[in-house]
Amino acid sequence: MRLPGLADPHVHLREPGSEEKEDFYTGTCAALAGGFTALLDMPNNPTPTVSAEALAEKKRLAAAKIVCDVGFNFGATPTNAPVYPAVIPEVAALKAYLGETHGPIVFGSLEGMLSVFQGWNSPKPIMIHAEGPIVAATIGLAALYDRRIHICHLSKADELTLVRAAKERGLKVTCEVAPHHLFLTREDAAPERLGPYGRMSPALQTGRDIDELWQGLADGAVDMIATDHAPHTRAEKESSKPPFGVPGLETAFPLLYREVYRGKAGLTLDRLVELMAIAPRRVFGLPQGDSEIEIDDTEFIISSENLHTKCGWTPFEGQTGRGRVRRVWLRGQLVFEDGRVLASPGSGRVLFSA
Amino acid sequence: MRLPGLADPHVHLREPGSEEKEDFYTGTCAALAGGFTALLDMPNNPTPTVSAEALAEKKRLAAAKIVCDVGFNFGATPTNAPVYPAVIPEVAALKAYLGETHGPIVFGSLEGMLSVFQGWNSPKPIMIHAEGPIVAATIGLAALYDRRIHICHLSKADELTLVRAAKERGLKVTCEVAPHHLFLTREDAAPERLGPYGRMSPALQTGRDIDELWQGLADGAVDMIATDHAPHTRAEKESSKPPFGVPGLETAFPLLYREVYRGKAGLTLDRLVELMAIAPRRVFGLPQGDSEIEIDDTEFIISSENLHTKCGWTPFEGQTGRGRVRRVWLRGQLVFEDGRVLASPGSGRVLFSA
Repeated sequence: MRLPGLADPHVHLREPGSEEKEDFYTGTCAALAGGFTALLDMPNNPTPTVSAEALAEKKRLAAAKIVCDVGFNFGATPTNAPVYPAVIPEVAALKAYLGETHGPIVFGSLEGMLSVFQGWNSPKPIMIHAEGPIVAATIGLAALYDRRIHICHLSKADELTLVRAAKERGLKVTCEVAPHHLFLTREDAAPERLGPYGRMSPALQTGRDIDELWQGLADGAVDMIATDHAPHTRAEKESSKPPFGVPGLETAFPLLYREVYRGKAGLTLDRLVELMAIAPRRVFGLPQGDSEIEIDDTEFIISSENLHTKCGWTPFEGQTGRGRVRRVWLRGQLVFEDGRVLASPGSGRVLFSA
Repeated sequence: MRLPGLADPHVHLREPGSEEKEDFYTGTCAALAGGFTALLDMPNNPTPTVSAEALAEKKRLAAAKIVCDVGFNFGATPTNAPVYPAVIPEVAALKAYLGETHGPIVFGSLEGMLSVFQGWNSPKPIMIHAEGPIVAATIGLAALYDRRIHICHLSKADELTLVRAAKERGLKVTCEVAPHHLFLTREDAAPERLGPYGRMSPALQTGRDIDELWQGLADGAVDMIATDHAPHTRAEKESSKPPFGVPGLETAFPLLYREVYRGKAGLTLDRLVELMAIAPRRVFGLPQGDSEIEIDDTEFIISSENLHTKCGWTPFEGQTGRGRVRRVWLRGQLVFEDGRVLASPGSGRVLFSA
C-alpha cells in the first residue's frame, strides 16, 4: 500500500544544545522510519530560537545532517516582535508558549500576548501552546487581530468545543492532536505503569476527553495529527525531576492506522492521510506530492529495539501497531527501506530558506 | 446646574449578610447623596445571589428599604446555567467572577466559562470580573457565542487596548472604569498612605495605565464610570487580612466633575453625563429621564464627616471635589436636599420585577 509522505508540524529535534536526547540526523532518521518526509522543528532549545541569529545557526546545523525536509518554527517572547518581519520568510510559523511549564520562552502576560498578535503580521500561523481559558484568549486575539492560529496538542474536550465554535464563526483556527493524548490516559501515567515516561505537557487526560478527540479526528474538528516528538534520555526521565515529553515519530502512523483498520470512531484511511499528510502540508505551506511511503499492511508489536530516535524508548512499548513503513521515497529517491536509512546526512532540504 | 440622575451598574449594598458594612437603606442614601438614582447590586453576598431563591429574598429585603431604584445582577457559578432562563427577566445582567480573589463564586475553569457563555442566551450583558489574558478569553467567548459582555472595573492600558480592538471588530463589548483607578495610584496604597484602605481588586495601577483610562473616558473607548462601591468597616480594613474594596458612591461625581472643570484629557460635561448617567442606563436597560439632580458648582474638601455610607470613611479624604449634589428628584419627588434624605425607606423601585 502506498501513501503520500507524512508531515509533522511539531517536533523537537533537540539540536543545538540537547544532542544527548536527539540530533538533526537521528531525529530525521526516526522521521523516515515513521513515514514522515517533512518536519517542523520547535524553538525551545536551551538557547531558544527567538532571534534571527539562533534561527540561522539552527538552519546551518540542520543543513549538514537532515535526511528528510525540515522547516523551523520561530519562538515568541513578550518582546521580540521587532524581529518578526525579518524572520517571517525564513520560518513556517511562530510558536508562542503561553503558560507556566516550559521555561525561558514561556509567558502569560496580556502585554506579551498583545505584542505577539499585533506584531505577527503574516498569514503564517501562530502556533499556540496553551490550555483551558488561555485557548479562549488566543481565539479572542485571533479574532481581534485577524491572525491565523493553530492550537498545538489539543487535549481536552472543552478546548475542542472552542475550536469547533471558532470554525463555525469562520475564524482562522486549526488544531492538532498528539497520539499520546489519543492512546494513553491519566491512568497510564501512574507510577506502576509509565511513571515518568507518561509525564508530558499537556498531561494525559480522561476517557471523555479522549472520546471527543477521536470524534474530532473523524468529523474534521481536529485538523491534523502532530506527534510533539519530544525525546529525553532514560536517565533524565528516571531522575528526580523528569522532564515533560515523549518521542512519537516512529509510532504515530502504526497506532493510528491500527485504529483505522479496526474502524474506530469511523476514521477512514482517506481521513488519516488528510490528518497526517495533506492537512499539515497545506496549513504550513510544506511541499506536497514530492514523497511517497510504502506500508506493510500487517500488525506488529511496537518495541524500543527497533527505534531510530536517539532516546531509544517509547511510551507505546508492547502496543500493537499496524502498517510498518517499508519504503520511503523523497523527490524520487528511495531514502528508507526495511529499517535502514539510505539517504545521506544533509540530503534533506531546509525549508523556508531563500 | 441641573443634570440627569446618575446611574451605577456596579455596587455592593451588602445586604443580606454583611449589614455591618452597609444595608439597602444606607447604601441607597449614599447613592442619593452622590447623585445616583439607579443602582445595580452585585451578587457576592455571604450567601451569593446564584439561585432564584436568593434573588427573590434580596428583592424582598430591598423593597422595604431602598430610597432610590435598585436592580440586581445575578451571579454565575460553573454549574448554575440551568437557572438562567428563569432569572433573566428578573435581573439586569449576569455577573461572572473569573479569577482567584473573591471567594465562593469565583472560578477559572474553561468548562465553567463555557457553561456561562453557552447558557446565557440573552441580550442582557454578562458582566466580567477578570484581568489580563482572561479579559481576552471573555472577548473570545463573546465572539464565539455572540454574547454581550461588559468588562467591570477595567484598570490596565492593555485591557483597554483589547476593548478598543473588540469595538473596532463590531463585537458587543462595553466596559466601565472605577474612580479609584482614575484618582489613586499604586503609590497611594503604600502603608504610610492609604494602607489597607487602598486595597482593592483589581489593584491600583501605574501612571501609564491611568493616562490611558483618562484617554478612553474622553474618546469613548470607556463606556461608563461605575463606582464598584464596596464598603467595609474600619475594623475589617484594619484587621490582619483587610478585605478588598472601597466605598465610592458619594465621591465619584465630585471627583470627575472637578477634572471636567479643570479640562483634564479633554473630558467635557456632556461626556461625563454620558459616562455616569446615559450610558449605564442604556446598556443595562435602566429607566431614562425619570430623575434629575442639582449641582452646586463650587469646590469643597471631601471628608468622611459628611458620608451616608454606613462604613463612614473614604479613600479620597482630603481631596478636592467640585459639584456637591444639592437636590435630587426621582419621578417628580424631591428625595434629597442639602445632605438630608427626604425619601422614605421603600420608596425606591426594585427594577426588573414582574
